[in-house]
Amino acid sequence: MQNSKEYKLLNQINSPADLKKLEISQLPQLCDELRAFIIDALSCNPGHFASSLGVVELTVALHYVYNMPYDRIVWDVGHQAYGHKILTGRRERFDTNRKFKGISPFPSPAESEYDSFVSGHASNSISAALGMAVANRLQGDTKRKIVAVIGDGSLTGGLSFEGLNNMSSSQNDTMIVLNDNEMAIDPVVGGLSHYLTQITTSHFYNKLRYKGYILLRKVGLLKDSKGLIKFHNSVKSLLARQKSNIFECLNIRYFGPVDGHDVKELVRILTTIKDFEGPKVLHIKTVKGKGFEQAENAPTIWHAPGVFDENTGERKISNNEHQPPLYQDVFGKTLVELAEKNEKIVGVTPAMPTGCSMNLLGQKFPNRMFDVGIAEGHAVTFSAGMAKEGLIPFCNIYSSFAQRAYDNIIHDAALQKLNMVICLDRAGLVGNDGATHHGVFDIPALRCIPNLTIASPMNECELRNMLYTAQMPRKGVFVIRYPRGRAENEDWQHSFDEIPVGKGVCVKQGDDLAILSFGPLGNRAFEAIAEVEKSTAKTIALYNMRFVKPIDEALLNEIASKFKTVITIEDGALKGGFGSAVMEFFEDNNQNVQVHRMGIPDGFVEHGSVSELYQLVGLDKQSIIKTIKEIVC
Amino acid sequence: MQNSKEYKLLNQINSPADLKKLEISQLPQLCDELRAFIIDALSCNPGHFASSLGVVELTVALHYVYNMPYDRIVWDVGHQAYGHKILTGRRERFDTNRKFKGISPFPSPAESEYDSFVSGHASNSISAALGMAVANRLQGDTKRKIVAVIGDGSLTGGLSFEGLNNMSSSQNDTMIVLNDNEMAIDPVVGGLSHYLTQITTSHFYNKLRYKGYILLRKVGLLKDSKGLIKFHNSVKSLLARQKSNIFECLNIRYFGPVDGHDVKELVRILTTIKDFEGPKVLHIKTVKGKGFEQAENAPTIWHAPGVFDENTGERKISNNEHQPPLYQDVFGKTLVELAEKNEKIVGVTPAMPTGCSMNLLGQKFPNRMFDVGIAEGHAVTFSAGMAKEGLIPFCNIYSSFAQRAYDNIIHDAALQKLNMVICLDRAGLVGNDGATHHGVFDIPALRCIPNLTIASPMNECELRNMLYTAQMPRKGVFVIRYPRGRAENEDWQHSFDEIPVGKGVCVKQGDDLAILSFGPLGNRAFEAIAEVEKSTAKTIALYNMRFVKPIDEALLNEIASKFKTVITIEDGALKGGFGSAVMEFFEDNNQNVQVHRMGIPDGFVEHGSVSELYQLVGLDKQSIIKTIKEIVC
Repeated sequence: MQNSKEYKLLNQINSPADLKKLEISQLPQLCDELRAFIIDALSCNPGHFASSLGVVELTVALHYVYNMPYDRIVWDVGHQAYGHKILTGRRERFDTNRKFKGISPFPSPAESEYDSFVSGHASNSISAALGMAVANRLQGDTKRKIVAVIGDGSLTGGLSFEGLNNMSSSQNDTMIVLNDNEMAIDPVVGGLSHYLTQITTSHFYNKLRYKGYILLRKVGLLKDSKGLIKFHNSVKSLLARQKSNIFECLNIRYFGPVDGHDVKELVRILTTIKDFEGPKVLHIKTVKGKGFEQAENAPTIWHAPGVFDENTGERKISNNEHQPPLYQDVFGKTLVELAEKNEKIVGVTPAMPTGCSMNLLGQKFPNRMFDVGIAEGHAVTFSAGMAKEGLIPFCNIYSSFAQRAYDNIIHDAALQKLNMVICLDRAGLVGNDGATHHGVFDIPALRCIPNLTIASPMNECELRNMLYTAQMPRKGVFVIRYPRGRAENEDWQHSFDEIPVGKGVCVKQGDDLAILSFGPLGNRAFEAIAEVEKSTAKTIALYNMRFVKPIDEALLNEIASKFKTVITIEDGALKGGFGSAVMEFFEDNNQNVQVHRMGIPDGFVEHGSVSELYQLVGLDKQSIIKTIKEIVC
Repeated sequence: MQNSKEYKLLNQINSPADLKKLEISQLPQLCDELRAFIIDALSCNPGHFASSLGVVELTVALHYVYNMPYDRIVWDVGHQAYGHKILTGRRERFDTNRKFKGISPFPSPAESEYDSFVSGHASNSISAALGMAVANRLQGDTKRKIVAVIGDGSLTGGLSFEGLNNMSSSQNDTMIVLNDNEMAIDPVVGGLSHYLTQITTSHFYNKLRYKGYILLRKVGLLKDSKGLIKFHNSVKSLLARQKSNIFECLNIRYFGPVDGHDVKELVRILTTIKDFEGPKVLHIKTVKGKGFEQAENAPTIWHAPGVFDENTGERKISNNEHQPPLYQDVFGKTLVELAEKNEKIVGVTPAMPTGCSMNLLGQKFPNRMFDVGIAEGHAVTFSAGMAKEGLIPFCNIYSSFAQRAYDNIIHDAALQKLNMVICLDRAGLVGNDGATHHGVFDIPALRCIPNLTIASPMNECELRNMLYTAQMPRKGVFVIRYPRGRAENEDWQHSFDEIPVGKGVCVKQGDDLAILSFGPLGNRAFEAIAEVEKSTAKTIALYNMRFVKPIDEALLNEIASKFKTVITIEDGALKGGFGSAVMEFFEDNNQNVQVHRMGIPDGFVEHGSVSELYQLVGLDKQSIIKTIKEIVC
């Protein structure tokens, strides 16, 4: 590794054209260098680590064999695309990865012509690639190759299946590379995963098919794809005990599994099969975190490990003593406490047990925690089925991924007024993961749905009490949205208090202006008010509304009786959000109050640190101070 | 048939308990009677016809074998559940089916304890049934049986696959009945459909498995489920050339296919396998429209045929001459015209080519129309892939089903600013299909998404011109929402005019009040204004805003300069909708205008005729007149 740190080959590669100049025999060294480069870069600039290490050889092989950007790679969940970015002209800027104004954390067509499609959410690659392939053929281009690279985790998402099912309906030569490492962020679950393992253990059959094919081709017995099909069928007859393939059932030709860390073998097989007609799957087996021992052994932790020592593998974890807890841990720990008291409580997560800290429930009550795969729609409908039979499911989904369960929330949960809790973690701006991951649309999207209760806590204690309240009898569909990152106070595990549904609270009295907050930005407002009051004679009230639905009408009437102008503040989209809810109430009730709304303006927000981004969109303390002063001074 | 019209057996059945009193030999007669009853009822009260005829035997068999409502049936797309409704105490009220205040068109837990789950949208049954099964076992009830009945069309939806994938993860005995009739509303497409046909043609193998099992059981060689598994495996070895099963790959035991119209055989096989442990699929083959010749021959037309003569099979089609066109036909015909002029245009529909009239494009340009299955998410992402390569896809989805593509619209379309058109048919209240089918959430849900253009036409000509405008260069993601049913004017196929994006229009001048409309309710407002002006001295202006995003700010400023009060009217949810957009603009720009919003209040709207429902929610002409008078008089 130390040797390759000189990056003798890698430093020559500024585009895939440079890569193609290498001999195939040099590729293993290039892979070593690329892997070392990624380890080196990520040890000091944190990012998605283990998945990018797992596809080093695949990335090199794809760019060696295909002709990008004329050909297209669609990466599914693009955090595995670091190697791809480094090989396609972004090596020197790679130290800006995920940083504000730096390289995008995921493939971004706006950033590079080599990034063919946005890929922040899992499972979209097959559909997008199929669309591209069909479009090219329809426009007369039958040469351009389209490759979708999808993990076995992403394959559990229903969108993947919809794409696979549609694959054989139109003429296309799409290549799907199934990168099977038995991991999403946590281990992959479900029947399909079990099945992929079965395929793998019957390696012999597939190897025979492939090796036999190569042999027959060499000796001139197989010349075209018709011959290949005949050959395949005869192998099938010969070894007919072998389970036939789920992909082939869907009319998609299957090759594999092959060792995804043998770059020369990958180049050989891709070269062989890339011109075959029709949709096809190449199943490769890889190890998440490959080449970095600690990551191979604990790929969930090393999915995105933060800063670490690249020699010792020691993660540089900042001292968390005397720090407020993460919101996700407040959720996870409180859920365990509640589940101890209420045996009707179960937890459901779409492949995020670690990310949302529901793993704590799984450790304590293994049969009451359900990881259903990357399948947000199913997570909600499955929870609704459990609620129908009297359980109280806590279904936890990141806000931006919950967009995939929108219909399920309406049709399967809200319409039936089931008693279930939908926790939207990572609501608001999430920071370095950027535009695809910000959870900013849920307030307007959900506020229009009848029968929902929608709450957001100002701090850890309020989250804890909202979770407690939500599991009480007959609460209906109770949505709680809360942000990524740390809460406000270190001391939080107090006894439970019920929060009256639809009731806000006055945090601070004042005379000249009122700020109405929904969620954690209330804390920034509180700080801003303190500064303004220090430097002016004005006093400003703060109301933590806690619920956007039902909204506290009595409190709004009280506010209207005292104030001519209010500021609303929320960590979500302004159009139709919390501020609009306040405005709608005042207008519908002839309350003549001027509403000045602060929230996320109408545009996709880029990546950067959470604080940089809140400053960018004008929701940091200074911006609030400025807004207050413009109104009252 | 005439004989069975006396309904000798059926008339005795007021609950499944009555059904269980019959001998198995009487069941074919009961099926005849039930079928005749459905034909008779639907000939004069229109509804979903062909699918309910197809599951007559299955329905009788399920209620004969299982113990409902203790056991549960989850019907997938509940329009096949008429027989179920008739057998579970709703026979005498069945003539009110789909009518205002009558029986619900789909299973409704609020209506009957026999309806275990809401099922208006396809593909949710497996997830819901699994949730129920797991919840019962967790609560100590291992006896209750859960059955999901799902069509091969619904199986193409990704949610089904997410459920299937998750099925083997938890202990459960769920039974899936796969009702395979090779039809959704239109013929089922995709690899899975092809595969199911393959299974069927290899009937021999499956028959042998099942018959062999029954034989061995009879002679006492098989006593428990372990024996069954051994037996299965030995049959597999014996007949190993047979393709193994896609369900078994997912660890779900497969039985079938069996004739779904042999009620005695269905009873026998269900009785045999219902107590087998673990998840299982029974694959039955049925004929959509079974028992009514015209429907068997043309199941798409007879999916919901309207009123007909039950003896001759003649559909009583009202005279459509001199009537305005259906909005869907304006779409379908205009799309063909545009596609003739612009070869980049393609059409994408998730299993609704007839429903949205995209079949016209398919007839003219078969290779430019893509029916992708019941797969709304894929429809959008597949379209986005095609747009990425320079085509201009028109992706047409019913508004309420587009809820399933919410994340795809955000992540795959809007974020990349692709040039594509999303047409939301059936926006607003759709009438007799009721709560699950009304398209009322799209305005608030989509308005918060950056980069979208969102338009709604006031009439057929405007829809035509919006479609024309949307396919012009660099228009980005262009959403057009329009309602079910007939448009306004008979004469509509005029030459195309571009509509300036984000520009509204003054339909009628006035001095005392302005009404701002978005979409077709502008016509009702126009009529209401005429009546008010007849009986008062007031004059009222009407502005057809045409776009909710971008909204016409210049026009709003002009309106604000003339009027102190405006009414907004829209056929969508009030919370965060078009009216709120108007209000937000006035508030943000310090325009002191009182906004009186008319739209769908916060609650799920029941079923009934479109006009009954608009009256119910206060959006008919009389309600508008009343509102105007309250403000100006």
